[in-house]
Amino acid sequence: MIAELDDRDGARLIGPLPTQDASIIIENLESDDAADLLGSIKEEQAEAILEQLPSRDRDELTELLTYHEESAGGIMATEPISAPVDATVGEVIELLRSLAEEMEDVYNVYLVDKTGRLEGKASLKELILAQPGQKAAEVMDREFPRVNVGMDREEVAGIFARYNLASAPVVDDNGQFLGRITHDDILDVMTEEVHEDIAYLTGQSEFDPGERSLYRNLRLRLPWLLLGLLGGLAAATLIAHFEPQLARLTPLIFFLPLVAAMGGNAGIQTSSLMVRGLATGDIGDYGLTARLARELVTALLTGSICGGATFGITYFWRSDLVLAVVVSTSLLAVIVLAAIIGALIPLMLKRFGLDPALATGPFITTTNDIFGLFIYLGIATLVLSKL
Amino acid sequence: MIAELDDRDGARLIGPLPTQDASIIIENLESDDAADLLGSIKEEQAEAILEQLPSRDRDELTELLTYHEESAGGIMATEPISAPVDATVGEVIELLRSLAEEMEDVYNVYLVDKTGRLEGKASLKELILAQPGQKAAEVMDREFPRVNVGMDREEVAGIFARYNLASAPVVDDNGQFLGRITHDDILDVMTEEVHEDIAYLTGQSEFDPGERSLYRNLRLRLPWLLLGLLGGLAAATLIAHFEPQLARLTPLIFFLPLVAAMGGNAGIQTSSLMVRGLATGDIGDYGLTARLARELVTALLTGSICGGATFGITYFWRSDLVLAVVVSTSLLAVIVLAAIIGALIPLMLKRFGLDPALATGPFITTTNDIFGLFIYLGIATLVLSKL
Repeated sequence: MIAELDDRDGARLIGPLPTQDASIIIENLESDDAADLLGSIKEEQAEAILEQLPSRDRDELTELLTYHEESAGGIMATEPISAPVDATVGEVIELLRSLAEEMEDVYNVYLVDKTGRLEGKASLKELILAQPGQKAAEVMDREFPRVNVGMDREEVAGIFARYNLASAPVVDDNGQFLGRITHDDILDVMTEEVHEDIAYLTGQSEFDPGERSLYRNLRLRLPWLLLGLLGGLAAATLIAHFEPQLARLTPLIFFLPLVAAMGGNAGIQTSSLMVRGLATGDIGDYGLTARLARELVTALLTGSICGGATFGITYFWRSDLVLAVVVSTSLLAVIVLAAIIGALIPLMLKRFGLDPALATGPFITTTNDIFGLFIYLGIATLVLSKL
Repeated sequence: MIAELDDRDGARLIGPLPTQDASIIIENLESDDAADLLGSIKEEQAEAILEQLPSRDRDELTELLTYHEESAGGIMATEPISAPVDATVGEVIELLRSLAEEMEDVYNVYLVDKTGRLEGKASLKELILAQPGQKAAEVMDREFPRVNVGMDREEVAGIFARYNLASAPVVDDNGQFLGRITHDDILDVMTEEVHEDIAYLTGQSEFDPGERSLYRNLRLRLPWLLLGLLGGLAAATLIAHFEPQLARLTPLIFFLPLVAAMGGNAGIQTSSLMVRGLATGDIGDYGLTARLARELVTALLTGSICGGATFGITYFWRSDLVLAVVVSTSLLAVIVLAAIIGALIPLMLKRFGLDPALATGPFITTTNDIFGLFIYLGIATLVLSKL
C-alpha cells in the first residue's frame, strides 16, 4: 500500500516508526519504490534503515540512491529479471518460478552474456509459446528499445509512448544490464512532469491537487503572488511617469488593463507551446527557425486582426482618430512582442540549463504586462508629441 | 506504424488511399486503433472500408464505433483474449498459441463462463508457473479491478494509476466480458486529457506542440484572443464610467493594471487546482466543504499579506492615506473574490455537465479582471464620496 502513496505521504508514515519496523516495510517494497522512499526521509534515518537490511538489498538500494532522481536510474528497479543468454526456455521458466514471490509484474526476461551485457529479451508470451527444450536465444528479440541509465526520465517516457512499451531494460554506457523500468513508473513520471509544468503555468511552486495543509497551500502560492505584486507596482510607477500624456488624452486610461492583458494572453499561448514542445521533443533543433518564423507570422496576423477590430470599435465609441490609432497600433506591437518573448525565453532558459517551464505563468505574464504598458505609453507619447 | 501516429495524421495518410489498400491497413491494426482511425475519416469512406473487411472484423469495429470516444468502450480493444473458465492451463496456453499472430501484447487471459460473464483472470506469469494439467480456475484471481464500458476514460486512467495496472478487462452492466484496455491506451488518454486542460489554461482550442500549419495555429488561438479583447473592451467602458472619480484622485489610474492582474493570478491558482483535482479524483464530494473553507482562508491570508505590503509601499511612495487605503482594501477584496470564483465556477460547470477546465484560461481571467476593476473603482467611489 505504501508503494501507492506519494513519497511525501510515505515519508510521513514511515518517519515516526522504529528503525526495525521501517526496515521490514522497505525490504518488502520493490527496489525503485524503496529507494524513492529512502530518498525522501531524513538521511540518518535512511542510513539506520539500510544497516538493518540484508546485504544484497542494501547494496542494491545504495546504488539506486546514487542516481539522479530525474534520470532513468532514478526510476528503475533492480530486481534480477535476467537470465544467461545460453539457457534453455525451460531453465528460464524455472528461474522465473524461483523469483515468482519477489516480483509482481513480469513482462520480459532479459538475456545477458557472461559479463552481464544485455543481449536480448524474451517476452512471457514468447516463452509460453516456445518448447521448454529450445534455447532462449532462439526465441529472443535482439532489436528493441533500451534506455541508458543517465537518460532524462521525460525522454524515457517519450520512448514508452512512442513504442507502446510495458517495460524497458536499463543499461550503462557499456551495455551492461542494470535494471528495468515499467509502465507504472512512466505514468508517475508523466503526472509529475505535467504537474510541474502546470505549477509554473498557474503560479505555484508545486502543483498538488490533493494538498490539504493550509500552511503548504500558502507557501506554494504566496511567493508567486508577491512576484505579481512587484510587477504590478513596477507597472504603477511606469504609468505615473507618463501622467502628463494621460492627462492630455484621458481616454488612454481606459485601455491600460486591455493592453496589459492582451500581451499576457498572447505570450502564454506561445510560451506554453514552446515549453511543452521542448518537453515532449516535438520541438527540437531541427526546423526550429521555420517554427519561430511561423510563430511570428501567427502573431502578426492575430495582432492585425485584434488591432483592426479595436481600431473600429474605439473610433466608433469615442470618435477620436488619434486615440484609435494609438490603441490599435499598440495592440499589434504588444501581441507581436509578447509572442517573440514567449518563444525566445524558453529557448534561452533551456540553453542555460534552466527549466523552460519558468517562462510560463506569472513571471512571463508580468514581464509582458510591463513591456506592453511601456509600448502603449511610448507610442502615445510619440503620437501626442507630433500633434 | 500507423497505430503510433495520432488520429489526425493517420486520417491524412489513409484518406487518399484506394479503399482496397486502406482496408488492408485497417485489418492489420488492433481493433481499438482501427476504430479510432475509422472514426476520424469521412463517414462514406469508413463505410466503404468496413464493407471490404471480413465479417468478424466488421462486426467488431461497428460495435466499437458505437461507444462514446471518451468512455472505456471508446478506448478498449476487442481481441478475444478470453478462455472458458473450466479449461485447463494447457488448453488456455494452446488457445494463446492459436492467437499469437493476432496479438502483440498479452498480460492476462480472462476467464468467462458459458454466458460470457467474466469470472476471473490469469496472468501469463501464473499460467507459466502452473502445471499444464491444472484447472485454470485454480490459478486465476477472482478479485481485481474491472472497468464498466460506459465509465469515463479519465476515471479509467485513475484506476490504472492507483493499481499500477498493465491491462484491465471491460465489462457491461451484466458483467459480460467485452474487451480489454492496456497501459498504452492509458498513456494516450493522459496525454490527451492533460493537453486539453493546458489548452484551456493557455487560451487555445486544442493544445498541439507538434502543430505545423499556420492556418490551424490561427484557428486554435484567435477566438480566445478575441474573447480577451472583448473582455478588455468591456473593462474600458467600465473605467470610462468612473472617469470623474479617476479625475478626482488621479493616482488611482496607476494601479488599474495591478488590481486586474492580481485578480487573474489568484483566480488561476485556485481554479487550476480545482479543475485538475476534479479530473484526477483528488477532489470529490467527500470533504468538499472543508477544502473550500481552506481555499477561502488561504485567500484571506494571501490577500491580507499582499494588501498590507501594498498599503505600506503606496503610502511610502505617494504619502496619500486615502489612496493607500483604497488600493490595499481593493486588493484584499479582489484576491478573495477571485478565489471564490475560481473555486465555484469549476464545480458549477461540472454540475451542469460541462468541462470544468473551461474555468481556467482567458475566460476566467477576463471575468476576474472585470470584477476586480469593478470592486476597485467601486471602493474608490465609496471612499471618495465620504470625504
